[in-house]
Formats: sequence, C-alpha cells, structure tokens
Amino acid sequence: MQSSVFLRRRKTRQVKVGDVLIGGDAPITVQTMTKTKTEDIDATVAQIYEVTKARCDIVRVAVPNEKAARSLGEIRRQIQIPLVADIHFNAKFALIAIEQGVDKLRLNPGNIRDESKVRNICAAAKERGIPIRIGVNAGSLDPDIKEKFGLTPEALVESAKKELRWFEKAKFEDVVVSLKASDPLTCIKAYELFSQQFDFPLHLGITEAGLPRDGTVRSAMGMGVMLYQGIGDTLRVSLTGDPVEEVEVGWAILEAFGLRQRGPKIIACPSCGRADIDIIALAEKVKERTKHLTKNIQIAVMGCEVNGPGEAKAADVGLSGGKHCGLITLNGEIIKKVPEEEMLDALLAQIEALPAP
Amino acid sequence: MQSSVFLRRRKTRQVKVGDVLIGGDAPITVQTMTKTKTEDIDATVAQIYEVTKARCDIVRVAVPNEKAARSLGEIRRQIQIPLVADIHFNAKFALIAIEQGVDKLRLNPGNIRDESKVRNICAAAKERGIPIRIGVNAGSLDPDIKEKFGLTPEALVESAKKELRWFEKAKFEDVVVSLKASDPLTCIKAYELFSQQFDFPLHLGITEAGLPRDGTVRSAMGMGVMLYQGIGDTLRVSLTGDPVEEVEVGWAILEAFGLRQRGPKIIACPSCGRADIDIIALAEKVKERTKHLTKNIQIAVMGCEVNGPGEAKAADVGLSGGKHCGLITLNGEIIKKVPEEEMLDALLAQIEALPAP
Repeated sequence: MQSSVFLRRRKTRQVKVGDVLIGGDAPITVQTMTKTKTEDIDATVAQIYEVTKARCDIVRVAVPNEKAARSLGEIRRQIQIPLVADIHFNAKFALIAIEQGVDKLRLNPGNIRDESKVRNICAAAKERGIPIRIGVNAGSLDPDIKEKFGLTPEALVESAKKELRWFEKAKFEDVVVSLKASDPLTCIKAYELFSQQFDFPLHLGITEAGLPRDGTVRSAMGMGVMLYQGIGDTLRVSLTGDPVEEVEVGWAILEAFGLRQRGPKIIACPSCGRADIDIIALAEKVKERTKHLTKNIQIAVMGCEVNGPGEAKAADVGLSGGKHCGLITLNGEIIKKVPEEEMLDALLAQIEALPAP
Repeated sequence: MQSSVFLRRRKTRQVKVGDVLIGGDAPITVQTMTKTKTEDIDATVAQIYEVTKARCDIVRVAVPNEKAARSLGEIRRQIQIPLVADIHFNAKFALIAIEQGVDKLRLNPGNIRDESKVRNICAAAKERGIPIRIGVNAGSLDPDIKEKFGLTPEALVESAKKELRWFEKAKFEDVVVSLKASDPLTCIKAYELFSQQFDFPLHLGITEAGLPRDGTVRSAMGMGVMLYQGIGDTLRVSLTGDPVEEVEVGWAILEAFGLRQRGPKIIACPSCGRADIDIIALAEKVKERTKHLTKNIQIAVMGCEVNGPGEAKAADVGLSGGKHCGLITLNGEIIKKVPEEEMLDALLAQIEALPAP
C-alpha cells in the first residue's frame, strides 16, 4: 500500500562530497566502508565496485598507515563514487589523504586530541574545499569526557561540541557530525540532544551493530526512531558482514519510511495455514527476477483471500493466490485468473509492461 | 556497552493467555504464527516445537476450515505454550476453537461484520475466560470504513473502535488490539492515535512485511518507533520466511532496546581495513558457541585499537584483536594477551566462567 503519512525532515545546512550533497533538501544518502586492506588497491577497488553496483552513494576506507594514505589517489581514480578517508590517530595521514584528493575526511575527536593538529587539517581541507565529518564514537571517547559524563548521550554530544569549538576557531564550517554508540538508545538520545542545538548535517549510524540479523535490527530501530523525528542526512549501517549487505540494509531503511526508493517494492504476506500456494518461494523468485528494475513500483505477492485482494489492489501490480490458481491485479483491478504454474510469468509480464510511475 | 537510557512503557490493562500475561507490567512477549496446514497436526506441532525452542511465548495458527478448528484441542495437548486461533470469515470456527480449549482468539473485524455473531463469540469466550484480540488489518478493512477514511491510520483506528463498541455492549473486556498495515508509517500513526484514547494492551506488528531482509527492517523500524514511545505489550514479526526467524527477529527487537534479554548479547565491530584478525568469522563462531547460554551477559568482539579496547571494557567479557594476537578483557580489565589461534578458546573459557549477572 502507498503511505498517506509523510515525514518532515529537520532543516540542516548542506555540504558537498564530490558531486554528492549531504544535508538540506538533498536525498538521504547511503554509505558503507570497505573491509579490505586499503593499501591493497585492487581488492579495495573491487569491493567499491561491488557496493557501487548496489547503489552505495559514498564509500569510506580505513587509513591506518602511510601506505594506505598514499593509495587513496589511485583508488579514487578507479572508482565512480566519492571517497572518504577514515582517520584516527595520525594527523599526518589526514594531510596525505587531502593531498591525494579524497572527497571528505572523517576525524575521530576521541583519537586526535590536539587542537593545533586539527587546525592544520582544517586549513588543508578548506583549501581543497572538502568537508570533514566529526565522527564521535562511544568506544573511543576522549578520556576526560568519559570520566566526567560516563558512557552517556551527553558525553557523545560534549565530544562533538569540544571539536566544533576548535573547528569554529579555525573558521571551518563544512562539517558533518555523527554520534555513534553500540547501544541504540544512547545513540538516539545523543542525536536528539545534538539536533536540538545545531543544524549541521547528521550522519546516522549504530556502531558495532553486530552480526547481520542483530545488526540489521539495531540499526533499523535506532535509525528508524531518528528518521521518524526528521533527524538524519546520510547513513551507514555497520554490520559484521559484507559491505554490500550494509548498503542493502541502508536502502531498505530509507525505503521503509518512503524517504527514497531504488526500484520495485515487494509486499509479501508471511504465509500461514491458509495459503494454497508456496508464497515464500514465489516471493523470492519475484524478488530475484525484478531486482534489475529501476521502476519505483509496488508489487504485492499474497497467499489467500484474507488480506490478499486488499493488498494486491493497493499495489501497482499484484498476485493473490487461491486454490491452484492466482488472480493478477493491475492498478487495483483484477485483470486475469491464471493457473498456478503460469502465475509467476503472468505477474512478471505485467510488471514488465508497467511504465515507471 | 550497557545503556544509561531506559524506556517508560505506557500503562495498559492486563490479560491472561494461558499462563502468559500481556499488558500492564508483564514483559513484552514474542509471538509467531505457524505456516503449516493447521489440520496437519503432526506438522503443526513440529513447527510449534521449533518456535518454542527459540523462546516463542505464544503461538497462533490459522483456522480456515472446520477440520483445522477441530484439530486445535489435540494440538494444544501436545504443545507447551499458549495457543491462539486466528479466525476470519466464519464465526462458527471461533466457537469450535473455544470449545477445543484454545487460550485466545484473534478476530478480524473487517471479515466478521455481524454484531450478533461477535456477541455469541464474546459470550463463549467469557465463559471460558479467554481473551480476544481485535486484529485490524489494512489489507482487509471493512469496506464502509475504507470508503469513508481511505487506507489511513484513522481507518484502522475506526475499525477497532467499531468492534470495541460491540464488545462493550457484550460486556467483554478481555481485549488485546492490533492495527496492522504493510506500510510502517501508517501502522505507527494508527497505534499512536489508538493509544492516546485507550488503555487496552497492544499487539504490535507490521503486516506482510516481506522477505527476511526487508521484513526485518520494516518491522524493526515500525516497532522500534512504537516501543520507543512506550507503546506495545506483545509483538509478532511477519516475515515471508521461517517462523523461527520471526521469533529470532522479535527477540532481537526487544533486546536492542533493553526491554528483554534471552542470553548473551554480542557487540561486534563491522571490520574494516584496520583489522588484523578475521572478525566476521570470529563473531559468527562466538555466536554459534554461546547460543545455548541463558546468561544475560554482554560479549564484545572487536578488530582493532580504535574502538576495540573501549567497547571490550564496556562489555562483561571482550576480545580486542591486534596483530596476530588478541586481548581478553573481563569486567573492564585486560586480563590476558593470547596468540590468534587461541583467542576463541580463551574468550569462550572466560564466558563459561562468568556467573549470570
């Protein structure tokens, strides 16, 4: 079904990462991070190619050593999406990354705690016109802040504020902020607190979310609560798994609240003792056979007469199962009854014939 | 990390389903629905056994025909958790289900639209002391209500209200309500509206959520927003997939917000170019080797020195990877440095030795 409910986004400033905008009225972007050794340029570029195919908007790579930093220019030349360098302890790597032409930096204020180093990085980034994300993380807080505030939402916000004061003194305004924690509630409260006080664009993420199922749930819940309040301009789902899966989950999160759509949306019933057709297998096949489509349509795959006709009619095209047969619906009207073995092809034919809305 | 943020639940009445409580201060329960033909008693009982092992609290079965209705007594005798009969078009099946001794009924007000039938069901349920869920679903709304309100949150609430008036006239108060839609935003708004007006316990669900990844995301986002507001007394995740997975996701949702815990919680980093150990494989192994435990402990599995030591110390027991080695932490202190090949066993030994908190 189409939603009659629309979310209002909080107003934030806008920054430019390569040719991708973050904040303001720009679409909320999906990011991920490579899991290869960055200095292994071929492996890193290959992984970035995979996530680009999955429609990742911006990609980040770890820069833990000078060799990784010096690989960034070559990586950037070989890829199609903006590249972000993730910097922790060593300010020198940030300066090299900027020289190498990256499109954005991420700095962890818990790990670079020297104002003069931050000032140098800001000056170099400003000269090249690239933005910096202040990426606070509960797992690597400034010890003084942790001592004073504990592992709380306030501590995360305080860490960002301290860094922002340095950025302000350096007259650097091209800032994105994140306030990640592995506990979704701590994370949500930190973003709420911060967004009441500042209009910098926000990068959402639940850090160390965990293995795919738990990580997906924690990320979807945490980001869901924030997006529902209009908070969030870009996001990265962290999973202990494939970065392509991080991108897929990121898109699923945006699509669930109608914030962005990447192609067909499939509504499928969970199946139960009422179903006379194998809905689970059928829905999987429809998903597989339509994943190349870029049309933003809704497809319903339903098992029985309880919610089947209703959901099928509310979708652009639908299939509602019966006893060894299926009803095909198009724009709310039943147009055809077909035997079970022809259902999939009949549905796909209707989907193919449908113009993009 | 432990959360410093706690959610307050809205106050609701309490009902009893077998020996399981829903509402009031009872823990939020996890439900699922079987996908077998209910009248195939062996298959249905076998599936209920699987979901019971996964700690499902309450199970529902479809009752689309008289044979299914007459199988309920035998199914109930063979299982350990409360049994709910899902009734749509035929009031007679509801009466048979009650006679058969089910612990709760679910009625779809969009599909039984005759007040006298509802009155008879209420009388029989009251005599046996079993509660009824008024299960509104956007896919099967009363046509008059759909005509007047469209597919909106207001339509879902109006459908529940109409049914509640009939229940009130029948002096039946043992009610649970659900207001499901496949669109998470419509669903959230309906529950928000309803819970501002009534204190009946609420059963949460995003209907026809879809294939496992999308369905998990839609359910976690929808339920996440509601639980964050203190709404929800029991839940069922609908996935086009295995009911055991529905139970796993349901638990993951409750655990993510600290509302209930079923055993060890694993915090794992997503891995990146910094990691010198294979975090993904290691976290999977830790998950597999600890899934039998009932201790509510936190385990951190981290790849490098950025957030590793911080997260590991914030967990009850942790492993933080380095170059071919790992640091084992216990209650915030590093207690051991072990070579990579001994890491998993050393971590598991610490987990085993830990008392339940």
